[in-house]
Amino acid sequence: MARAQIGVYGLGTMGSALALNMAEQGIEVAVTNRETSWIADFVAEAKDLAGNLHPHERLEDFIADLATPRVILFMIPSGKPMDMMLDQVIPLLEPGDTVIDGGNADFHLTRARSERLAEHDLHFVGMGVSGGEQGARHGPSMMVGGSEHSWAQLKPILTRIAARFEDDPCVDRMGPDGAGHFVKTVHNGIEYADMQMIAELYGLMRHGGGRIPAEIGKVFTRWNDGPLQSYLVEITGEVLGYDDPETGAPMIEMILDAAGQKGTGRWTVIEAVRLGQSASAIEAAVSGRAWSSEVDTRAEVEAAMGGAREAFDPGEGALAQAFLCARALGYAQGFRILEAASQEYDWALDHARIAEIWRAGCIIRSALLDDISDAFRAGPPRGELILAPRFTRLLADTLPALRRVVSGAMAAGHAVPALAGALSFIDTMRQSRGTAAVIQAQRDRFGYHGFKRVDRDGDHHGPWWD
Amino acid sequence: MARAQIGVYGLGTMGSALALNMAEQGIEVAVTNRETSWIADFVAEAKDLAGNLHPHERLEDFIADLATPRVILFMIPSGKPMDMMLDQVIPLLEPGDTVIDGGNADFHLTRARSERLAEHDLHFVGMGVSGGEQGARHGPSMMVGGSEHSWAQLKPILTRIAARFEDDPCVDRMGPDGAGHFVKTVHNGIEYADMQMIAELYGLMRHGGGRIPAEIGKVFTRWNDGPLQSYLVEITGEVLGYDDPETGAPMIEMILDAAGQKGTGRWTVIEAVRLGQSASAIEAAVSGRAWSSEVDTRAEVEAAMGGAREAFDPGEGALAQAFLCARALGYAQGFRILEAASQEYDWALDHARIAEIWRAGCIIRSALLDDISDAFRAGPPRGELILAPRFTRLLADTLPALRRVVSGAMAAGHAVPALAGALSFIDTMRQSRGTAAVIQAQRDRFGYHGFKRVDRDGDHHGPWWD
Repeated sequence: MARAQIGVYGLGTMGSALALNMAEQGIEVAVTNRETSWIADFVAEAKDLAGNLHPHERLEDFIADLATPRVILFMIPSGKPMDMMLDQVIPLLEPGDTVIDGGNADFHLTRARSERLAEHDLHFVGMGVSGGEQGARHGPSMMVGGSEHSWAQLKPILTRIAARFEDDPCVDRMGPDGAGHFVKTVHNGIEYADMQMIAELYGLMRHGGGRIPAEIGKVFTRWNDGPLQSYLVEITGEVLGYDDPETGAPMIEMILDAAGQKGTGRWTVIEAVRLGQSASAIEAAVSGRAWSSEVDTRAEVEAAMGGAREAFDPGEGALAQAFLCARALGYAQGFRILEAASQEYDWALDHARIAEIWRAGCIIRSALLDDISDAFRAGPPRGELILAPRFTRLLADTLPALRRVVSGAMAAGHAVPALAGALSFIDTMRQSRGTAAVIQAQRDRFGYHGFKRVDRDGDHHGPWWD
Repeated sequence: MARAQIGVYGLGTMGSALALNMAEQGIEVAVTNRETSWIADFVAEAKDLAGNLHPHERLEDFIADLATPRVILFMIPSGKPMDMMLDQVIPLLEPGDTVIDGGNADFHLTRARSERLAEHDLHFVGMGVSGGEQGARHGPSMMVGGSEHSWAQLKPILTRIAARFEDDPCVDRMGPDGAGHFVKTVHNGIEYADMQMIAELYGLMRHGGGRIPAEIGKVFTRWNDGPLQSYLVEITGEVLGYDDPETGAPMIEMILDAAGQKGTGRWTVIEAVRLGQSASAIEAAVSGRAWSSEVDTRAEVEAAMGGAREAFDPGEGALAQAFLCARALGYAQGFRILEAASQEYDWALDHARIAEIWRAGCIIRSALLDDISDAFRAGPPRGELILAPRFTRLLADTLPALRRVVSGAMAAGHAVPALAGALSFIDTMRQSRGTAAVIQAQRDRFGYHGFKRVDRDGDHHGPWWD
């Protein structure tokens, strides 16, 4: 007798948190895990939520416990394990059932898996889940990619467990097949850029301004009360306030400056480049993490060349304005990639809705996203966020500060690749006449590639060929 | 009766030029083309070289005319046409024959094609050819990827047609399967960065210094007499000297500033990111071309925000020093990508030899490459070009100029993404203590990712979890 509305396979950090979230919302959840020894412990720790959890050790029992058409959420690694799982589960399912991959996945794989399941009249959903463990447990932001049929199955469940911005649940169907995973990938790309910018601003206050970490933490906390309000600014203010319990030194100074990364930042850059787009702030963040990991090489280069950073203190207000400008440009670049992919894969992504479901629950939630959703609802010229009147104004107001901060930082020897990448982008885009004519002349000279003229149509070659 | 030492299939610009180069060197060349009507014209235009050209209209005759084991050079588009050609030609060949793809190809495809031909005891060579039409005709630089067997077949032919640096022919076997095409891809990536830097420097002299194009051309021509000597600097000086025959205006001002691109720049960035590397100067060049193509958006953003660029003239000497610094960093980034790929695909690339065969014939030939080959021959610390003593000195000498130029340009509103990308790279790499600890603290705070400490091994979490 099938009782559960949904099954959760995979009781790691994120899977456990989502299952508990559902149980708390009164949803009957079948649960299982590859290592069956975890299952009983999980249910025991769930305490008074255990009544809504239906543990199973055998895959067949787990599936038999699900109301049809079934919905199974897999929270497992997204590479080979996912494909092996599909091998096992496909023969046990019936037409109309939906399988969800709730991890971060390369959306090209999600598209391929959707096709594979469609051959069996099954539905595959690639779902991005943001917010970390806390988000998953108490309200994540979720980006669903899949069929309308699957969305009809999922909507009643997901709208109950999602984060809410005012009364609006932060979950929606982004589009078919890989759309949800791709939107999550770009979400993470924007997150990379925002985190890198925060690190660069910290560096300027620490090494350029000579301020101690706890003071800098207070700056971020103050910023969190204004237009820079966001989860990442909030937690930065928080972590900078901690001392290391072991040494008594500021905690941040005891952490090795070698940043790790998983796939999503890289995927964002790779897909952007494939689509003929470029997101300089996100690229700079991915670069910055890669370079940071070369700890020994950095030490040798400093020993050989010197690592001097001079004093540079443009003031808290200028730094805040510079960040607001660069952050807006980072978001704008992310949405340009989303639009390019939407056209390439025929997803018809709704940028306003994407901004809306990012307003709560996810890592990049911020005050700015409310402005972004409004800007997209109003339909900016050419679909470009930077051309939306309120964003053009914001950029015009804050660009002088970004310019002052970046040029001053680079003059003083501070590395600010993401802030500089954002500035290079807007300085290129705001000039109707740039310098690429030189490149076109070179290309024609060495490879007879031809060029367009400014005064009439057609392909032309230079007089150096006459 | 087989007479020809090599067959050239594809009589487009590059194929024709290579066939004529071979014929001129006394090599007997069988030639054919998909559109057979081109063949007679090609031979007629070859005039006194026609005696060494053996035209064929039928593929079977073309192949029958080749001495065994055969060598066939395909100069055709590298996507589907190449695979369709292989379908046709494989049944006509015998064990030990070699098929060469002499176009620009994604090295992943080259690797797959090598495997495919190996199943038939045939050899596939991916060969990068640089130098444009003139190079192909009178001496290109060639990067060969394939078996030792193929190299033994090709060496006597290619060393005769290659460019020479002093007495050294600019051709060699880079390694197996995709090694040659990948080295060519990165060559082109470095070319992108160098061209973008030149365009940025032109922009500074034109819009910051208010100089006319012909004067700026003379600056490049002067630079070509010193440490910046290179083909790209030489032709830049040349093209900037031309006026438009139609309007009398400087030719460069009549060329639309929208740069085209083919695949190689993008492939370089994508592969770099895949390998966990990052080449900020090359990325910036690819970005710059992509942004330049958005002519209408740029015009709208300028109308909305203003496109002011202020005067900025750091002087010809500072610009030259800045370019030398940034160019060296662009090369260094390219070689870092080559090293990462060499390790990933087990190619054992010889960086010194790569620099040597780039010293003549190819688009990026430059005085600096002679220094680079010397530096790699001497075995720089950690294999890093920037740690080779002469490069560390060069960077230390020229970095202040790059810093002055980039910070001044960005302060004045000029877009210099590639120069800025190079500066961000070296400013990150020369600091043993950067700012990535902030990113690690954030990641631990929102996702319990953990971090390393500066004072001891192991994975740790922050006190915010206690």
